[in-house]
Amino acid sequence: MIVRPQQHWLRLIFVWHGSVLTKIFSRLFLNFLLSIVVILMLPWYTSLGIRLTVAPFSILGVAIAIFLGFRNNACYARYVEARLLWGQLMIASRSLFREVKNTLPDDPALGEFVRLQIAFAHCLRMTLRRQPQADQLSAYLSEENLRLAMDSSSPANRILLIMGEWLAVRRRKGELSDILFHSLNIRLNDMSIVLAGCERIANTPVPFAYTLILHRTVYLFCIMLPFALVSDLHYMTPFVSVLISYTFISLDTLAEELEEPFGVENNDLPLDAICNAMEIDLLQMNDEQEIPARKMPDKYYQLT
Amino acid sequence: MIVRPQQHWLRLIFVWHGSVLTKIFSRLFLNFLLSIVVILMLPWYTSLGIRLTVAPFSILGVAIAIFLGFRNNACYARYVEARLLWGQLMIASRSLFREVKNTLPDDPALGEFVRLQIAFAHCLRMTLRRQPQADQLSAYLSEENLRLAMDSSSPANRILLIMGEWLAVRRRKGELSDILFHSLNIRLNDMSIVLAGCERIANTPVPFAYTLILHRTVYLFCIMLPFALVSDLHYMTPFVSVLISYTFISLDTLAEELEEPFGVENNDLPLDAICNAMEIDLLQMNDEQEIPARKMPDKYYQLT
Amino acid sequence: MIVRPQQHWLRLIFVWHGSVLTKIFSRLFLNFLLSIVVILMLPWYTSLGIRLTVAPFSILGVAIAIFLGFRNNACYARYVEARLLWGQLMIASRSLFREVKNTLPDDPALGEFVRLQIAFAHCLRMTLRRQPQADQLSAYLSEENLRLAMDSSSPANRILLIMGEWLAVRRRKGELSDILFHSLNIRLNDMSIVLAGCERIANTPVPFAYTLILHRTVYLFCIMLPFALVSDLHYMTPFVSVLISYTFISLDTLAEELEEPFGVENNDLPLDAICNAMEIDLLQMNDEQEIPARKMPDKYYQLT
Amino acid sequence: MIVRPQQHWLRLIFVWHGSVLTKIFSRLFLNFLLSIVVILMLPWYTSLGIRLTVAPFSILGVAIAIFLGFRNNACYARYVEARLLWGQLMIASRSLFREVKNTLPDDPALGEFVRLQIAFAHCLRMTLRRQPQADQLSAYLSEENLRLAMDSSSPANRILLIMGEWLAVRRRKGELSDILFHSLNIRLNDMSIVLAGCERIANTPVPFAYTLILHRTVYLFCIMLPFALVSDLHYMTPFVSVLISYTFISLDTLAEELEEPFGVENNDLPLDAICNAMEIDLLQMNDEQEIPARKMPDKYYQLT
Amino acid sequence: MIVRPQQHWLRLIFVWHGSVLTKIFSRLFLNFLLSIVVILMLPWYTSLGIRLTVAPFSILGVAIAIFLGFRNNACYARYVEARLLWGQLMIASRSLFREVKNTLPDDPALGEFVRLQIAFAHCLRMTLRRQPQADQLSAYLSEENLRLAMDSSSPANRILLIMGEWLAVRRRKGELSDILFHSLNIRLNDMSIVLAGCERIANTPVPFAYTLILHRTVYLFCIMLPFALVSDLHYMTPFVSVLISYTFISLDTLAEELEEPFGVENNDLPLDAICNAMEIDLLQMNDEQEIPARKMPDKYYQLT
Repeated sequence: MIVRPQQHWLRLIFVWHGSVLTKIFSRLFLNFLLSIVVILMLPWYTSLGIRLTVAPFSILGVAIAIFLGFRNNACYARYVEARLLWGQLMIASRSLFREVKNTLPDDPALGEFVRLQIAFAHCLRMTLRRQPQADQLSAYLSEENLRLAMDSSSPANRILLIMGEWLAVRRRKGELSDILFHSLNIRLNDMSIVLAGCERIANTPVPFAYTLILHRTVYLFCIMLPFALVSDLHYMTPFVSVLISYTFISLDTLAEELEEPFGVENNDLPLDAICNAMEIDLLQMNDEQEIPARKMPDKYYQLT
Repeated sequence: MIVRPQQHWLRLIFVWHGSVLTKIFSRLFLNFLLSIVVILMLPWYTSLGIRLTVAPFSILGVAIAIFLGFRNNACYARYVEARLLWGQLMIASRSLFREVKNTLPDDPALGEFVRLQIAFAHCLRMTLRRQPQADQLSAYLSEENLRLAMDSSSPANRILLIMGEWLAVRRRKGELSDILFHSLNIRLNDMSIVLAGCERIANTPVPFAYTLILHRTVYLFCIMLPFALVSDLHYMTPFVSVLISYTFISLDTLAEELEEPFGVENNDLPLDAICNAMEIDLLQMNDEQEIPARKMPDKYYQLT
Repeated sequence: MIVRPQQHWLRLIFVWHGSVLTKIFSRLFLNFLLSIVVILMLPWYTSLGIRLTVAPFSILGVAIAIFLGFRNNACYARYVEARLLWGQLMIASRSLFREVKNTLPDDPALGEFVRLQIAFAHCLRMTLRRQPQADQLSAYLSEENLRLAMDSSSPANRILLIMGEWLAVRRRKGELSDILFHSLNIRLNDMSIVLAGCERIANTPVPFAYTLILHRTVYLFCIMLPFALVSDLHYMTPFVSVLISYTFISLDTLAEELEEPFGVENNDLPLDAICNAMEIDLLQMNDEQEIPARKMPDKYYQLT
Repeated sequence: MIVRPQQHWLRLIFVWHGSVLTKIFSRLFLNFLLSIVVILMLPWYTSLGIRLTVAPFSILGVAIAIFLGFRNNACYARYVEARLLWGQLMIASRSLFREVKNTLPDDPALGEFVRLQIAFAHCLRMTLRRQPQADQLSAYLSEENLRLAMDSSSPANRILLIMGEWLAVRRRKGELSDILFHSLNIRLNDMSIVLAGCERIANTPVPFAYTLILHRTVYLFCIMLPFALVSDLHYMTPFVSVLISYTFISLDTLAEELEEPFGVENNDLPLDAICNAMEIDLLQMNDEQEIPARKMPDKYYQLT
Repeated sequence: MIVRPQQHWLRLIFVWHGSVLTKIFSRLFLNFLLSIVVILMLPWYTSLGIRLTVAPFSILGVAIAIFLGFRNNACYARYVEARLLWGQLMIASRSLFREVKNTLPDDPALGEFVRLQIAFAHCLRMTLRRQPQADQLSAYLSEENLRLAMDSSSPANRILLIMGEWLAVRRRKGELSDILFHSLNIRLNDMSIVLAGCERIANTPVPFAYTLILHRTVYLFCIMLPFALVSDLHYMTPFVSVLISYTFISLDTLAEELEEPFGVENNDLPLDAICNAMEIDLLQMNDEQEIPARKMPDKYYQLT
């Protein structure tokens, strides 16, 4: 995620970091070159009876803008839902540990339980980003539990099962009444909701045909644009063509980034920072001494 | 579902698989032919005093784009909701079995229960796709239960009743307290929510009149488009007409595919893969040895 | 509800049933006649200095399309919510009876309870459609209960109270613990949510002024359209004018149908079929022998 | 609320009641007069080199229509949410009393409790409409409770506290088990949700700047419209200008009405009728004899 | 928050307070100056063959309006959600204290508990606004608790833990049964939901690239607008250009304000007033004598 720099409105127009401009610069430059070619070739192909006017492109432009708006909505909704799910993980983690600590204040294994919770968050993050997990998780899980989790096709789900067993042992020992066990199970279920929700977003993209249809129409539109503009604008064609292309291509590209909110691109969610905040919170709730430092944005305003 | 191939932005413009282009190619080709006929006939019907300009079609095009955007929204919402329901089934299945296993860790019939859960998922999938079920379900259900389910007009609902009875027997034997029985019943209810939700989506389409009105206006619009464009664009008419038609017809067709998300077309949900993942997860949670292989996309990037 | 006929995309353009075309045909025909009159009168009123161009109507057309899109959204949301509520009734009915049957498997009055549930669904349906109820409900309710329900201003709510009393009697007899009584009460509350939700949709329409403002602007727009088009299109005016009018008027009319989803028009909900499905399900869950036949669409694809 | 009169589609164009036309008639008339002045002054200011064309206003008109559509959405969402909250009050009231009556069927003070519930609804209604309450509430509350409620800055919240105490007394006497007390408390909480939700809508409007920006641009747009239309339309300017202005101004004004859904204007919620229906329902559930008459729309189709 | 002044529709056009006009006046003035420069330079650069027409800007204007509408939606949704969360805090606070007071009516430490609740609200408000907290919180928290909260990286979460401990102590003493402890824990969890929800909104902005892309295209569009308008409008260019720029820039700026709803700008949430109302409510529920005065808007209609 790019943290917004506090800058004057005028300077924001020229900001380079955080926009998708770095990605699409070459495409806009191609559009610029094409416009110049079109200006030069105009006399030749006009003599062949070929002409294009703005009016039909106006219909097309508005239609594409509407459909692009729809796709942006759909992709942004995925981003928002992904963030919401991680917020729910924060809620469930804190509530679960608060209830456990209030109910079993003298349990000697509270530290073990809090580490299971932290391991769940890190495990989910690394699963979503397809990163290797065993190393980092070994800091939080016992050897036995680590092996069980790594053997599972869904390690995070296995950790939930281990947490449920941790609680069930105490229910069988009579330290937790059925009603409190039920109450804590609701929190585990909340974490299961987050897990399956994130898996759903990661595994089921916006139907590929949407991406394809819009990608295709946006680029064909931008390619034909200089031909349509040149008879009206002549020398100004490159500038207007690039500005219009920028509006459409940048939003198409941004939608593509937001569609997969769990990556590490500029506009993806800062899962590292969220996990880090969760770890600090849970360790502080257990009154532990060694608390990791808070993650801050780097000098490019980037927070992963 | 088509899994998105990782390709360069330029090559994506020419991708054939996964788009609806295969379906509508013949219609776009007809539009192309019509445009050529229109160019040839232009002198003749202009002499009859017949003329069409772009301006009125601009009003119509924008209006259709807005209404098509609305219908796309409605159809996409069905697709998203259907995926959400299957995600909730994943959540409920895992949570139900986690609670059962934590509460009754030594029950000898856990394997029977986990198979009831797997049968429920497969049964729901095959009901939604109107496929014959008895064969596949016989791998998970006892003969008696299979007969009960097949005799019912809603087999999946019957399986839920059998699962409830499985739990109720243990409640009556005193192995489950009322509060834990209540807690597990909430999970069964979650599965009932998924069942009825999928039935609702499958049985109640977007009002047919929406489909009809938009289908009709989109195609009449595309048929009249070459007539409107020809006086402005002349030789370029076929290209612009096909591009505009493509934008409108492809989105109309895609909306139609998304409206029924449980089919096996390119943009439908990969229910086979979801059921397969659920089966693997549940069997692993029960520490079973024989786990089926994970379903992967085929060489056309297709995942059913 | 009209069940979608499986037809070729080309034939769908000419489908008559299920569209709102039957309703608005006369209005479109008037528009056609008006266009012809406008063509004939054109020389006369041009000589008076009266002229209309397409450009201002373009602003108006786009604005109306946007607002119509908004109203369609609002009306469609009511239709979707109404369907959702009936889906929730299905869920609550099944879950309630599953829990009752699992908890009280040997209760001799299960048949009575299942009929109370069926009566609730039929009663709600007939209340929403303002149909007389006593006759049909007498098949499901005892005389005493029928009298109590009919005397109430909200019979469905009274049936809920009777169901609650049925359960409370068993609680007082010690057959239901407090926790299970609480659990079953949650299901009754779910049915109460459906009841009040349907009453809300039936009693509180979309603010009348929306209907009025859009109805008025759509029709005034369509009346003035031929005047605006005629100078550009001349002989083609009637065709284009009718096509644009069709787009706007049909969506205005469809929105009006969807606004009241509980009626028996082409695009209303098939409440008869839903109640019928619910009745079959509940009777089968109680292992009864006499199951009513499933309701199917008639030969006009109509399902009420 | 205006109840929709059943009228022919043609007559609806001229309906006066219920539309916002009564409110904005003078503004449209001013627009009409301005258009005539513009026609008369056209030769003079054209000679000064001042000219306005439709094209730039087309950009502005579409932009305003999109933003107005957004604001309509926001205001309508408040109206829908307000109605939803009152529907939830209906649900919670019925469910709470059903549970109380089923659990404590012989309690002599049931009549007192049902009046506390009715008082809550009336109190909320009058708080939202800023009407004096003491008189009407004295019919439902004991003197002591009335004094407590009136002394509080949020009387409805105080009534909830009194209802909670009514139940808590029975818990302490052993008539209500903890689990049923908990269950009834959930209903009280539902009523608390409605209360705080309505307060939120009443106290936090749509950000004032939205209202201001759109109000301002709509009116400036309508004022400049005749100047832009006159060179194209000449004598027809007043008619087209008033029609376009009507579309924009009426939706701006309606959004303003819907923004505050608790008032007593034409398009506000019929809180009197809802409270009346709730009172009838609750009294009938308690089998009381004196039931108030049902509120019906008056001869102007108005229901408050 | 600006409270809406009740003013005539005509005067609203010239209102200064509460709109974003104060912020963007200089930018509009620059646009005005630029337009005049463009008029003066028109003959010179036309002679160079440079020309711009309105048509391409129409495509761009509509596209920007659609995307701006989308961003407004996203930002307004954050504002609405933030307000909703504070409404939920009001609900949870009242319900929690009602349940505590009804269950433990004679507990001598009720005053302490109510102050913990008030401290939570103030602490959340000051955390979101990044204000120093220790001073104000010392009025509500014991020294020990204040220290614990201030030492935590999330003080509000620590206060929740303290509230949970307050209840857990009473559970261990046998004053609260497990079921009522569970019920009260649900309320604490509701407050945890509010806390994490507000943190989420404050820490995760709308993806920076949206802000950047739209900011950039809006300003480039407004800069090029005078060049496009001048050949059509000539002397009227400055007025029309400023009006169109106002529409776009003001909505861009407002969206930016709404994006961060917890600030103290004109269109931000009145958190001081909400906390104040919550404090009054809770103290009155505990029948305390010293109630703070209600916060009212100042003379500029501003409520913080």
